[in-house]
Amino acid sequence: MLNVDKQCGTFLYRQVIDLITENMDTGTLLPGDRLPSLRKMSRSAGVSVPTVRQAYVELERRRRVESRPQSGFYVRHRATNDIVRPTRTTAANPAPLRCRPLMERVYDGVNNPDLVPLGIANPSMAKPAAKTLHRMMKRVMARAEERSLGYASTLGEPALRRQIAYHYLDTIGAQVEPDEICITNGGQEALLLALTAVASTGDVIAVETPTYHGMLELIDSLDMLAVEVETCPEEGVTLSELERTLQKYPVKACMFSTTLGNPLGVTMPDQDRERLVRLLEQYDVALIEDDVYGDLRFDGQRPVPAQFLGSKARIVTCGSFSKTAASGYRIGWVVAGQTIDEVARLKRAFSCSSGLLQQLTLAEFLASGDYSRHVKALTPVLQRNSERMRALVAEHFPAETRTSRPVGGSVLWVELPRKVDAEQLFDDAIAAGISIAPGHIFSPCACYTNFIRLSFGHPWNEKTEDAIEWLGQQVTRLAV
Amino acid sequence: MLNVDKQCGTFLYRQVIDLITENMDTGTLLPGDRLPSLRKMSRSAGVSVPTVRQAYVELERRRRVESRPQSGFYVRHRATNDIVRPTRTTAANPAPLRCRPLMERVYDGVNNPDLVPLGIANPSMAKPAAKTLHRMMKRVMARAEERSLGYASTLGEPALRRQIAYHYLDTIGAQVEPDEICITNGGQEALLLALTAVASTGDVIAVETPTYHGMLELIDSLDMLAVEVETCPEEGVTLSELERTLQKYPVKACMFSTTLGNPLGVTMPDQDRERLVRLLEQYDVALIEDDVYGDLRFDGQRPVPAQFLGSKARIVTCGSFSKTAASGYRIGWVVAGQTIDEVARLKRAFSCSSGLLQQLTLAEFLASGDYSRHVKALTPVLQRNSERMRALVAEHFPAETRTSRPVGGSVLWVELPRKVDAEQLFDDAIAAGISIAPGHIFSPCACYTNFIRLSFGHPWNEKTEDAIEWLGQQVTRLAV
Repeated sequence: MLNVDKQCGTFLYRQVIDLITENMDTGTLLPGDRLPSLRKMSRSAGVSVPTVRQAYVELERRRRVESRPQSGFYVRHRATNDIVRPTRTTAANPAPLRCRPLMERVYDGVNNPDLVPLGIANPSMAKPAAKTLHRMMKRVMARAEERSLGYASTLGEPALRRQIAYHYLDTIGAQVEPDEICITNGGQEALLLALTAVASTGDVIAVETPTYHGMLELIDSLDMLAVEVETCPEEGVTLSELERTLQKYPVKACMFSTTLGNPLGVTMPDQDRERLVRLLEQYDVALIEDDVYGDLRFDGQRPVPAQFLGSKARIVTCGSFSKTAASGYRIGWVVAGQTIDEVARLKRAFSCSSGLLQQLTLAEFLASGDYSRHVKALTPVLQRNSERMRALVAEHFPAETRTSRPVGGSVLWVELPRKVDAEQLFDDAIAAGISIAPGHIFSPCACYTNFIRLSFGHPWNEKTEDAIEWLGQQVTRLAV
Repeated sequence: MLNVDKQCGTFLYRQVIDLITENMDTGTLLPGDRLPSLRKMSRSAGVSVPTVRQAYVELERRRRVESRPQSGFYVRHRATNDIVRPTRTTAANPAPLRCRPLMERVYDGVNNPDLVPLGIANPSMAKPAAKTLHRMMKRVMARAEERSLGYASTLGEPALRRQIAYHYLDTIGAQVEPDEICITNGGQEALLLALTAVASTGDVIAVETPTYHGMLELIDSLDMLAVEVETCPEEGVTLSELERTLQKYPVKACMFSTTLGNPLGVTMPDQDRERLVRLLEQYDVALIEDDVYGDLRFDGQRPVPAQFLGSKARIVTCGSFSKTAASGYRIGWVVAGQTIDEVARLKRAFSCSSGLLQQLTLAEFLASGDYSRHVKALTPVLQRNSERMRALVAEHFPAETRTSRPVGGSVLWVELPRKVDAEQLFDDAIAAGISIAPGHIFSPCACYTNFIRLSFGHPWNEKTEDAIEWLGQQVTRLAV
């Protein structure tokens, strides 16, 4: 029984409101926290369920809380920054990579377990999945003792390919043939195989800007050139800009992440995706869609990758379990469609086949339904972390700071005041025990010098909050 | 007590000789079989140990048996074919790959578990190693539950790199820094990274002939050109021919397997290896040494890879556990030396990092000494299989047939009568339930049309013997 006073003149539901707001003010209820359920609150406060509902609805009207379907009411973040603006890059010409040395230093930071890990994109979701995956792997070892040490076939274990095809059917109703899927060494090798299958040395590849640095390193390593296409933080690639680029340069392929692209966390609206596909058909340009974050939409609504929109364009979708289940397994895939023979040939030439034991284990993880349950449990945690991080950035960073509004995934893109050099901030942060990703590495011409990417994909704790606060203070110092 | 008659006038040791030769003639003792030990024979035949020794030495003089140090006496193969001759290829010009479609069909055969597996090179050594590796992996999962699902670093798990460096020190006394080793997705990715680090599209790469088809597919996939260099089945690459090639073509790198090269199973003598290194220095050509069979010398004498001969040439050594412990783990490595930064950059761009769980497990497998024990137990089995296979080929194939004389590894290279088309034989064999590797795929210009490669790396049984006999009969038919 909480301190609701039935004798007091105030309406009961108002007392519930006061109770909640007081707890918000004292910090017991933090942004992103779930309010007690109607039933629970009714019992503990000794009032009726409709009274609690009335209070919660009023709080929602006041924009202190927000309701989420099938989930309940959550404390809203009151202060948030403006959203980042699309960046017209200074050099839209196809360009080789400028920021290699800085990239290496970012990786050194990412590989250092002593730092607060705000620099690495993949959510460290090991905790919930580890026990289940280990148990399944032991079972696989017992069942297929000798076989599990041998080679998988070039395309990969049929059971896993079938499960991946089923997952597409189950989540987006897409018809994928297991035999057009090739299992790869993580999403990165998926990108390698897809890109080598559709383009050659010297070719121009269109990318979103900002975009995932691993794509840029890959394009550069294959002696291809990346050309950046303006990308809107709320709608993805600006299609008019893309068309201008296709007119201006001999683009061989686009390498986009239209679902929860890294670092913007933006998803292209369905109608734009259809326009994109028609544009690619028209200009006869291939599309490599990096879809490794697809399962991590906060609202659980998986968008349909462009490949499944019934187009005649050459489209290849790249997926991975690195962001959702086990990055150390190094298991990803390519849905290669009409390029499957070429992809299989390249897979064989580049790495023969992928680890069999992990493939058998993941096949079981998917077949049992544990994968879906795991992802369903993971996304609300990511959403909550995302909201907490945005609130803390709003609280501690200078007022001109802008952020992305991720609708999924595990990263926040932050635009700092113009004067701040993100490389300097990166160096200072490393010295202070914090890893971040400076904006430079998300563009071939290193143009995002006053941006950083922060990861919220790791267990949230005091160190995370202290790190964000420290970063805010340092940005304030550097902005002067 | 065997049927040695002490009252008979014949010398006792002659009776032992007769006993052994009779058993050979009736097929109880087969080529490659170990004779009973001196002590055992002395006991069972009721004669003294010196008498048995006298008999065995006499049998060795007659070339019916051979002694092996620290191991005992073994039945010799009486009939063997002449050794294959070095082949002057028809097209020594740099050439793109001709036999892609046939290669694909060979892989289909290799991936079919219902066929007698004479077509796949890697020895299926899972049996002895499986239990130990599984036990160690379970221990790793228990000890590093969450960590083992995360990313390894780009270069790979330090513990494994240290163990690999220690293995070089232990077996050949070479000083390798763990930090110049990059862990890869099997030996194939090791070749990919090494080749991309030292050469680009359009470059000419010198290869042995015949050579491993995986190298040819890799060179072709990267739009490079392979030029073949005559390779002697008893001494490796003919250095005078190599020099002529270096003079004639702008060779950027050599991709050789100077220890137990596949398919010849030949090892280059040490003095030639030193000459090779000097030649490469002189012409400023890089060397990628495929050393994945290095641990499988029958005599246990590991030759020193060229990289460790103290040269200033750019030499990269590629190794793997696929041929010795667990192909399904997909763990190999590059000893990258001065190219380590480039190799690390490419590793990150192509596949981020390799599977952590397998790396931790193999690190323990090496550290415990189990790897060395396992390899020591494996090579005598391979040697025995090799001898049996050569004897059966001599027995069943036409007299003009020639074979390699492998000093290690798991494959036999067989030159058939000129009229025989190995592709036809391959098709007939598949139809008869046997996979083999037709000679075509071991040369970019598909010139080994009357050669096949047979693998003796799998458990030997009646099916193996029947398959060889069937192949011999079929070759005889096709030779007419």
